[in-house]
Amino acid sequence: MTVVAVDANGADLGPGEVAAGARIAAQQGVEILLFGPAAELGPAVSGIEIVDAPISIAKDPDPVRAVRGTPEASIVQAARAVAQGRAQALVCNGSTGAALVAGQLAIRRAPGVHRPALALTLPVPGRPVTLLDVGANADVRPEVLVQFAFMGAAYASAMLGVARPRVGLLSNGSEAERGSQLVLETHARLAAQCAGSDALMFVGNVEGSGLTQGVADVVVTDGFTGNVALKLVEGVSQATLGAIRDVALGSMRGRVGGLLLQSGLRAFREEIDPERLGGAYLLGLRQLGVLAHGSFTRHGIARAIVRARRGAEEDLVGRTHRALEAAGALRRHDLLSVSDDTVLGGDP
Amino acid sequence: MTVVAVDANGADLGPGEVAAGARIAAQQGVEILLFGPAAELGPAVSGIEIVDAPISIAKDPDPVRAVRGTPEASIVQAARAVAQGRAQALVCNGSTGAALVAGQLAIRRAPGVHRPALALTLPVPGRPVTLLDVGANADVRPEVLVQFAFMGAAYASAMLGVARPRVGLLSNGSEAERGSQLVLETHARLAAQCAGSDALMFVGNVEGSGLTQGVADVVVTDGFTGNVALKLVEGVSQATLGAIRDVALGSMRGRVGGLLLQSGLRAFREEIDPERLGGAYLLGLRQLGVLAHGSFTRHGIARAIVRARRGAEEDLVGRTHRALEAAGALRRHDLLSVSDDTVLGGDP
Repeated sequence: MTVVAVDANGADLGPGEVAAGARIAAQQGVEILLFGPAAELGPAVSGIEIVDAPISIAKDPDPVRAVRGTPEASIVQAARAVAQGRAQALVCNGSTGAALVAGQLAIRRAPGVHRPALALTLPVPGRPVTLLDVGANADVRPEVLVQFAFMGAAYASAMLGVARPRVGLLSNGSEAERGSQLVLETHARLAAQCAGSDALMFVGNVEGSGLTQGVADVVVTDGFTGNVALKLVEGVSQATLGAIRDVALGSMRGRVGGLLLQSGLRAFREEIDPERLGGAYLLGLRQLGVLAHGSFTRHGIARAIVRARRGAEEDLVGRTHRALEAAGALRRHDLLSVSDDTVLGGDP
Repeated sequence: MTVVAVDANGADLGPGEVAAGARIAAQQGVEILLFGPAAELGPAVSGIEIVDAPISIAKDPDPVRAVRGTPEASIVQAARAVAQGRAQALVCNGSTGAALVAGQLAIRRAPGVHRPALALTLPVPGRPVTLLDVGANADVRPEVLVQFAFMGAAYASAMLGVARPRVGLLSNGSEAERGSQLVLETHARLAAQCAGSDALMFVGNVEGSGLTQGVADVVVTDGFTGNVALKLVEGVSQATLGAIRDVALGSMRGRVGGLLLQSGLRAFREEIDPERLGGAYLLGLRQLGVLAHGSFTRHGIARAIVRARRGAEEDLVGRTHRALEAAGALRRHDLLSVSDDTVLGGDP
């Protein structure tokens, strides 16, 4: 039996919206442990067990201190339920910082993994591409990016059904000799470690424009660049749609044209809707995490919960471990990463 | 008398297209020194002096070696003309690597400047934002980004008429405590060095989504992130327009709607057309450089030439120097940058 632990705090629309999303997911057969303020979560329904946890640390500016100092917070309780085996996946809403810390402290990193990563299938029109890391780690080292390549490939295989994902490295030029020092070193390692891999095919450097051209299934980058890229995609898509709406509302002629295009554009708007794929996947822990965007409605939240269950049932964590092991990309104990400790204030 | 030196090699459409662009600019009163294969440059016209320089190093994979070893190459001759005072600005097409090297070797960095930067006003709909660096330096240090802030502000003042430009720092979060180590250190320095500056107003961190929201006139970043961002903007805009075109061609209803919207969308397409603003500005040398995109037609190339003249006449180089000096951001001789030397193979 797969159970998903859901933190009801953190969503912009409030705990009631998360509970509504949980009810939609429960109707699809997902078993849910829902942590939040019981008074705001609405009626109990079959498949959902409510745990009254009114305290939220979603907006705390210091998530490390908040997670350590608030064991009764809903997100910490939800993560602990996953760590204790009462649930097999964690779903959080909005509170990225707290989710990253609670995940690492309670669920803990998977053996041999340097850093967890946030993976997101980008809301760009056309062929989907999964980008990671989109914001968990602002500064990383080459061996971390190498692991991200295998983590992202395992995600694309298990969740998107891509047999041997094409994995690219985001860079400022497609040639192997282009890139920052970080990218140059990572490129060399990936070329060596991916040769002959069944888990993925390394397709080399991918430029920013490549993210919309279907040249790779998975694109690897540091969490700084990935976060800038993700928010830029969302910003440009929205600005473009807004400009077209302005044209369509600017004249009678435009208004009629807009009406005629409306049904066609609806499909397009859905394609670039961040809610469609149910959020970002937190990969590299001992269990799976899914982070829904704070702005999601019940529908995006329900998708996040359903996909968290699927990730657990597809054994995404086990697949990732086996792919890293086969590639010789697991961390050896004598290579303990300094950065691993600094993110959590010196205490792993 | 302001003269613009133009390299006719490097453009995708060939030297003849660059010559056609030069003729358009000459009709607007620009004096031009045009370096390229005379046989392909068409008729001589008033205002254009043609220098036969058929050798192109635009596609050479090793621009440092090519520039050093090919003093007769058109781009090297054009840069030398600027260095010798025969012209006051340089315009190149497509060959970014060769232009960067020729600019640094022949025209040389302005006194006290760590690294030149490529500044580009982004082709996003709505309020324009100038991003730098979009690709000259993949790895930089905080003092380099601080200089970019003043260089970008001088550009926005002189060329875009913004009185006291709002300058932001691209980051993975708008709060001051978010960012890579590079961004955190740069943020602290900018906050200190920009306090009370007449040259610019530091508005703090700007997220990827902020690039389309008009929250800053100038956004500073390293050339790796900036290049990824620029190409992503172009890719997402094109993909979005392409998806809308597909909708408009997908049915009779859509076709009629598309026709009705056509004139309105034309203005929008022009707004996001990279040719509109005439390319990227190479700032931080002793004279101004402008790099037109390799894909430009004669119209974009003509704009690049006209704007290069304007930048020279507005004394962009002098303004930048005075702003850096007033802010105490000029390089001191005892702080010689290691990276300055490595880009040119150990020889400054």
